[in-house]
Amino acid sequence: MSTETPRLDPALAAGNRRPAAGYRATHFKWQLDEGVATITLNRPERKNPLTFESYAELRDLFGQLKYADDVKVVVMAGAGDNFCSGGDVHEIIGPLVRLKAPELLMFTRMTGDLVKAMRGCPQPIVAAIDGVCAGAGAIIAMASDLRLGTARSKTAFLFNRVGLAGCDMGACAMLPRIVGQGRASELLYTGRSLGGEEGERWGFFNRLVAPEALQAEAAALARDLAAGPTFANGITKTMLHQEWAMTIEQAIEAEAQAQAICMLTEDFTRAYEAFVARQKPRFEGN
Amino acid sequence: MSTETPRLDPALAAGNRRPAAGYRATHFKWQLDEGVATITLNRPERKNPLTFESYAELRDLFGQLKYADDVKVVVMAGAGDNFCSGGDVHEIIGPLVRLKAPELLMFTRMTGDLVKAMRGCPQPIVAAIDGVCAGAGAIIAMASDLRLGTARSKTAFLFNRVGLAGCDMGACAMLPRIVGQGRASELLYTGRSLGGEEGERWGFFNRLVAPEALQAEAAALARDLAAGPTFANGITKTMLHQEWAMTIEQAIEAEAQAQAICMLTEDFTRAYEAFVARQKPRFEGN
Amino acid sequence: MSTETPRLDPALAAGNRRPAAGYRATHFKWQLDEGVATITLNRPERKNPLTFESYAELRDLFGQLKYADDVKVVVMAGAGDNFCSGGDVHEIIGPLVRLKAPELLMFTRMTGDLVKAMRGCPQPIVAAIDGVCAGAGAIIAMASDLRLGTARSKTAFLFNRVGLAGCDMGACAMLPRIVGQGRASELLYTGRSLGGEEGERWGFFNRLVAPEALQAEAAALARDLAAGPTFANGITKTMLHQEWAMTIEQAIEAEAQAQAICMLTEDFTRAYEAFVARQKPRFEGN
Repeated sequence: MSTETPRLDPALAAGNRRPAAGYRATHFKWQLDEGVATITLNRPERKNPLTFESYAELRDLFGQLKYADDVKVVVMAGAGDNFCSGGDVHEIIGPLVRLKAPELLMFTRMTGDLVKAMRGCPQPIVAAIDGVCAGAGAIIAMASDLRLGTARSKTAFLFNRVGLAGCDMGACAMLPRIVGQGRASELLYTGRSLGGEEGERWGFFNRLVAPEALQAEAAALARDLAAGPTFANGITKTMLHQEWAMTIEQAIEAEAQAQAICMLTEDFTRAYEAFVARQKPRFEGN
Repeated sequence: MSTETPRLDPALAAGNRRPAAGYRATHFKWQLDEGVATITLNRPERKNPLTFESYAELRDLFGQLKYADDVKVVVMAGAGDNFCSGGDVHEIIGPLVRLKAPELLMFTRMTGDLVKAMRGCPQPIVAAIDGVCAGAGAIIAMASDLRLGTARSKTAFLFNRVGLAGCDMGACAMLPRIVGQGRASELLYTGRSLGGEEGERWGFFNRLVAPEALQAEAAALARDLAAGPTFANGITKTMLHQEWAMTIEQAIEAEAQAQAICMLTEDFTRAYEAFVARQKPRFEGN
Repeated sequence: MSTETPRLDPALAAGNRRPAAGYRATHFKWQLDEGVATITLNRPERKNPLTFESYAELRDLFGQLKYADDVKVVVMAGAGDNFCSGGDVHEIIGPLVRLKAPELLMFTRMTGDLVKAMRGCPQPIVAAIDGVCAGAGAIIAMASDLRLGTARSKTAFLFNRVGLAGCDMGACAMLPRIVGQGRASELLYTGRSLGGEEGERWGFFNRLVAPEALQAEAAALARDLAAGPTFANGITKTMLHQEWAMTIEQAIEAEAQAQAICMLTEDFTRAYEAFVARQKPRFEGN
């Protein structure tokens, strides 16, 4: 009789690990390559609109990524020369005008749940934005962590143009924190397009790249992030949102706790040992 | 005997509708033209200062606009080549230095109530800012939703220059959200003037226009907003401020509810039907 | 028997006044000149790193400045051509990798307490930033009120490069409010250097100056602030942080109370009387 304890995969044992490796997407393209997942909205002939089905699948997928530790970074992209035209007029807006209050709230909560899931998973999300980025597409861009754009990209919070309010999926909370309250107000009250250069100047885009280089640049940025201390990156993401409405005193205490956890990771030791050995650290995300 | 129910104006019946059409202003100019109200501070020989009386009238007027559904957008402007020089030194600061704590608090609460009323009414406010925009004038600009400026405009949070703190009428809350915490700190600690081009670069101004075009551009922007879905615009304004200190999760739920209400408006249906008919929608604000 | 009440220094009587005039610093340079205190991190051969001891002394010093009414403004600077390289790799990171959770939390709370103390004292802090401004050095810059930089300065939130999260000493709360959420995300996820011109464009720096003019410009700005209504400046600082996570309504009421206190100061009367006499006011900070 062996006294050896059977070896457990601790993450599996805790019921937490659900690898995304075998995932098959139905309503968009999905690729996973060395920790970098790429989601490509893929109806280029319609500028990649969202439908009830693709909304729901995106929400469910980002919800699962919380437990998928084989995914380190996510790239959000659109097929062809556009990012996303938002909710499809025929497949979404048409049905919505016939729904009653309880069903409408089910819809708006479902779209909001997509943003919650994008913000709730630990992976940084890099949006690669060319051409049209409109309505819910602009919200998906904003719910991402980093945004690469092109000079010809057109980002529009179109809700006002279809008779709705600018408060959609968290827009009135997130956009002012990205571009400032005055500029956010203009975009939300008028629904006008934000051009690429203007978007970079305002801090909506982290950087503009040539359209033909966009996918490669987004992938390169994602690989850089995936080569970093990915557990710590996930904590950065959690805290950026956790501290959204805290006082400074609360935020400092929350960070003291969160950073103490990160100081217990082997990645922190790896970085120190690499520094002493005058080498580049190799992080493993634990 | 008729069994017909008498027809009610539902808004009047609910005690809510108080049209602004017949309003006569005492301490500034007031015009109402097809849903666009224009308030012009009108003592150009003194650069349009505020007095106890004009403060109180502005506070009361914006308080009433909450119920005035014949006003869709408000333009705030100054007569002559200046916007507003703030609280009059002789008519406000002179008396204040002789007041005791309870009266001073009554005054600071009254000025704060003007900002609350400006933020609490559903109409987007467009400020048209030329020349001097100082002290409480700069706060009124900031309490507006959109700001058009001129290159020669000078915006100064002068409080520090008169021995006071930069925390006046909500300045320490609002200015950092418009221009960022570091730039707001400089303006509030030093009281220095922000020039027009710098103000546009910082996102304080949405746009600069030539002085001679300022009133016309502000009016055109106001008419554009008034032609939009004005009920939904009012919800955008409410939510921009409602979500100021919410967490992202709370904001998303709040927007799900608010947008569901807007999806029940006829303006939403009008936009859909216009799209299907390849026409421009005509919104009616309901 | 005299009926005269003995004269008290009211601030001393209240147990509050602890002048900083006699302070002798151990781990950095300290100068106090007509109300302007200058703290110079002073290990230029190592680019002015922080150690456990200098962290603790800075925390204690800023904690005492709350009660030091002979200090009106603080300048934070680095000796030589650099501001601060952050936590020393050998003297801080080396020991940290061997600590357990409770000790690590003691460390992260201690560093966070430095930021709390910098934000909690009434004196505006001017950071004079040249060369390297990295890790905890970048946090100290951010915990200051105003930042002067140089074109060659390099500000980097390096935490990610040493295997840690970007949430250090309040960074995920403060940086997004200074440069916007998208730009802050990039700096925190990548650890990349922010150059001087980029930093000015983003609002991280209030102004760039030539390296050789940096200390003189920071001192001049500090003297200007020290010549202002310093009690009111302290209230501005308190309110900028007090209102961080308030609603707009709460912020306006808080400012009404805070400004009413300032209207009772003699500095407010001095400003009014100077204006009437067409003179420049002389503030005394009371």
